Amino acid sequence: MSDYSFVLNVSVVNNKRFFYRVIGYLLACLAVAQLATMAVSFMLHDKAFWNFLLSALVTACAGVALLMRSNGATELKKRYLFLLTTLCWLSVCAFAALPLYLSLPQLSITDAWFEAVSAITTTGSTVLSGLDTMPKAVLLWRAILQWIGGIGIIVMAIAILPALKIGGMKLFKTESSDISEKILPRSSHLSGSILLVYLAISAGATLSYYIGGMSWFDALTHAMTSAATGGFANYDASFGYFNDKPWLLWLSSVWMALAALPFVLFVGMARGDKWALLRDPQVKAFIAIVLVAAILLALYQIAHNGRDWFSALTHSVFNVVSVITTCGYASEDYTKWGAFAVVLFFYLTFSGGCSGSTSGGLKIFRTQLAGYLLLKQLNLLIHPNAVWTRKYGSKKLDDSLLGAVLAFGFIYFATVAALALILSMYNLDFVTALTGAATAVGNVGPGLGDIIGPAGNFSTLPDGAKWWLTLGMLLGRLEILTMLLLFTPMYWRY
Amino acid sequence: MSDYSFVLNVSVVNNKRFFYRVIGYLLACLAVAQLATMAVSFMLHDKAFWNFLLSALVTACAGVALLMRSNGATELKKRYLFLLTTLCWLSVCAFAALPLYLSLPQLSITDAWFEAVSAITTTGSTVLSGLDTMPKAVLLWRAILQWIGGIGIIVMAIAILPALKIGGMKLFKTESSDISEKILPRSSHLSGSILLVYLAISAGATLSYYIGGMSWFDALTHAMTSAATGGFANYDASFGYFNDKPWLLWLSSVWMALAALPFVLFVGMARGDKWALLRDPQVKAFIAIVLVAAILLALYQIAHNGRDWFSALTHSVFNVVSVITTCGYASEDYTKWGAFAVVLFFYLTFSGGCSGSTSGGLKIFRTQLAGYLLLKQLNLLIHPNAVWTRKYGSKKLDDSLLGAVLAFGFIYFATVAALALILSMYNLDFVTALTGAATAVGNVGPGLGDIIGPAGNFSTLPDGAKWWLTLGMLLGRLEILTMLLLFTPMYWRY
Repeated sequence: MSDYSFVLNVSVVNNKRFFYRVIGYLLACLAVAQLATMAVSFMLHDKAFWNFLLSALVTACAGVALLMRSNGATELKKRYLFLLTTLCWLSVCAFAALPLYLSLPQLSITDAWFEAVSAITTTGSTVLSGLDTMPKAVLLWRAILQWIGGIGIIVMAIAILPALKIGGMKLFKTESSDISEKILPRSSHLSGSILLVYLAISAGATLSYYIGGMSWFDALTHAMTSAATGGFANYDASFGYFNDKPWLLWLSSVWMALAALPFVLFVGMARGDKWALLRDPQVKAFIAIVLVAAILLALYQIAHNGRDWFSALTHSVFNVVSVITTCGYASEDYTKWGAFAVVLFFYLTFSGGCSGSTSGGLKIFRTQLAGYLLLKQLNLLIHPNAVWTRKYGSKKLDDSLLGAVLAFGFIYFATVAALALILSMYNLDFVTALTGAATAVGNVGPGLGDIIGPAGNFSTLPDGAKWWLTLGMLLGRLEILTMLLLFTPMYWRY
Repeated sequence: MSDYSFVLNVSVVNNKRFFYRVIGYLLACLAVAQLATMAVSFMLHDKAFWNFLLSALVTACAGVALLMRSNGATELKKRYLFLLTTLCWLSVCAFAALPLYLSLPQLSITDAWFEAVSAITTTGSTVLSGLDTMPKAVLLWRAILQWIGGIGIIVMAIAILPALKIGGMKLFKTESSDISEKILPRSSHLSGSILLVYLAISAGATLSYYIGGMSWFDALTHAMTSAATGGFANYDASFGYFNDKPWLLWLSSVWMALAALPFVLFVGMARGDKWALLRDPQVKAFIAIVLVAAILLALYQIAHNGRDWFSALTHSVFNVVSVITTCGYASEDYTKWGAFAVVLFFYLTFSGGCSGSTSGGLKIFRTQLAGYLLLKQLNLLIHPNAVWTRKYGSKKLDDSLLGAVLAFGFIYFATVAALALILSMYNLDFVTALTGAATAVGNVGPGLGDIIGPAGNFSTLPDGAKWWLTLGMLLGRLEILTMLLLFTPMYWRY
């Protein structure tokens, strides 16, 4: 049995028609989402109705045309999975940008593309301002895109990337995992269950936000962008619009954190393994990092800025969770807290949440494995002939796995560095270039500095820089190697 | 035969007395250096004579006292080599600071320590200003310290670190190297030859600087700090004092670059293997990086700032070489060239020169090996069962070596990150904290930003930050793991 059989029946023939089929199917789904938004637009009497109708027609036509040419193909060579995955994201982004471009007359093609990629990759950097008075349909569309992106990420993280063995992801190959073998005999059940988890988080967030005092519309859209760890808000002040209701910040922290945990463990819990979550080494580390960072920042604010403890703790927890889960809401401009906060938030931009969730970044398990490798090296310095065996959860760590993880870390930093250098050619200053690159590749949202910081906006960046940033977002979302491989001659050879 | 027998006869018994012997010997040498500086001070009639005499007496007493207690011990357990190496550097720094503290009444203990550590580790960050009018003896002392530090680094890099297998350094274990087995039958010959190379570079630089128009004193001191890739200059404008003689900048670029190449290859060349240097993969990469960076920056200056090509190229080459070799002279404030220059110089701060030279930083071979590992991973994604064998020069690369190199890269960045976070607690801004940490651990010299940039000075930093920076310099100089190991419980167990 091949590893990824529940996604694709992959065995023999490479076929363009398989590409048509998958992309056509995705575009058809996107057209349905556009029709749904159109319906809401109609009910709310905003001006976006015709734009969404037109977009839906165009998207549906493209999808159907592809499906008609697909001829029911069901087979694909494994190596083309890299190309297919990349093309899926690109085509969805392109058709997702259409209603934005049509509905907002001031928006350039660049800006529409930027906003769509930022949405679908669940990055959450925005070029839009005046959100508070924008047609509701546009706000809903941004939230829907992030929510759809979230599904795409989970499917990739659980089904495709482990099969492709990207950056140590084979650790999470569900077929070889003890837990899943016991509790989840068949992966097709798993993907259904995981979708249920995602729906449950979204529904729970919607309900709790509504009870907490949001309107139904705000509750639904913010729940969608929380569950997707996307970070688009309906207001220029981001989540800070709700600062007068601090309980909403705490609620949101909980939902973002849940969405950044490995979804497969929720399924395990639901099926009877009560402690699946708390036994997981990645989850433990995630919780520890959040607690340490939030408490340090709260103490810093109390000591350095004389803030009262409740407000210090609320905003520390909220913004730490928001950045580390790569959601990217901001409750206020945390770069004003002081130098320590700026540096710490910069580091959190790289961290990311757990693997198998909707969050981006390096992912906690990679940092952990790098730490293990370091311990191993230190041990080797003292005991050169010692055999070092270490387990991660229930899996044994071997050298090739550690190598894969470290190589991923290297290419991750190299990608951020290269992107920052390119951005600096557009005369973006050091801080904007560096943190812009980091926040794009990490799919976080806000950077640092006056321009793209939590109180800023990406709209004033040069057009060229925006295109490069979207490339960074896509690279980060596809765990870099998936897409980078396409640029190597060896991928296209033979 | 043990690997490091030419430095220490190491086999059986751990003994405090061996520590006394080595450190005592080093202090005795340092006292001789202080006496030499005193003699120069006497000839130049500056006011530092008595201070150097007093320092020499104190240092000599300490050295002799230790030597008397050493009882001729000749054996040491290998694991104590980590501790011994660290203590050697610490004690030399402490006694090196003494004449600075005595000679400059305005200097605090913190500043004297900072300047001494910065000198001995060949970092070249300074807290002194008014260099142009400072007693010549003090300037000479700073240069001598860097020059002595340079020797210490080469001995470490060639003899001690490969034996300890720090961060992939076993690649350069001379005993197992093809070149050295053929050409250099005995390592004790090697260390003598390498000292000759160092002396030759120093003498060549002195002569060429003098012919180029420097005074004898300036020529000698700048030659010392060039050969050590240290970067202390005798003027507040750093090497920019000589900008009216651009050929001096070119000469200095050549000497800095030579000092950042693997010294063992010069020995090989001298013994008949003419192409040893140009065949070496590390040297090739070093030259390529310098050329690409310098040409990019020259073009950027011409296009962006409208500078004439000769001046653009001169200052690009000089400052690129200065930063990548971790020398740290500056000919002008290159951060004013524009955003692209700032970002690029930040990256060069991490690079470092070749292994087995006086330069610091990550070292070129580690970046190369990380790149190899990445190629291997990309190859594995397409051909999961392929066997990937790759050579680095004449050595085969195995997984454990790559793991060691990548783990080193990880701990290097983690050290810089931790140091930057600590610096930010002293309210240093993002750029100062981040680049201050990077320049200290890389032993480069200048950072970025208004405070510690190439036109700035470290004197205004808070005292606490200065102590932390010296820790960073020492960590970087000792390839981090040597010193970090001492902070782990496992080092002290059994």
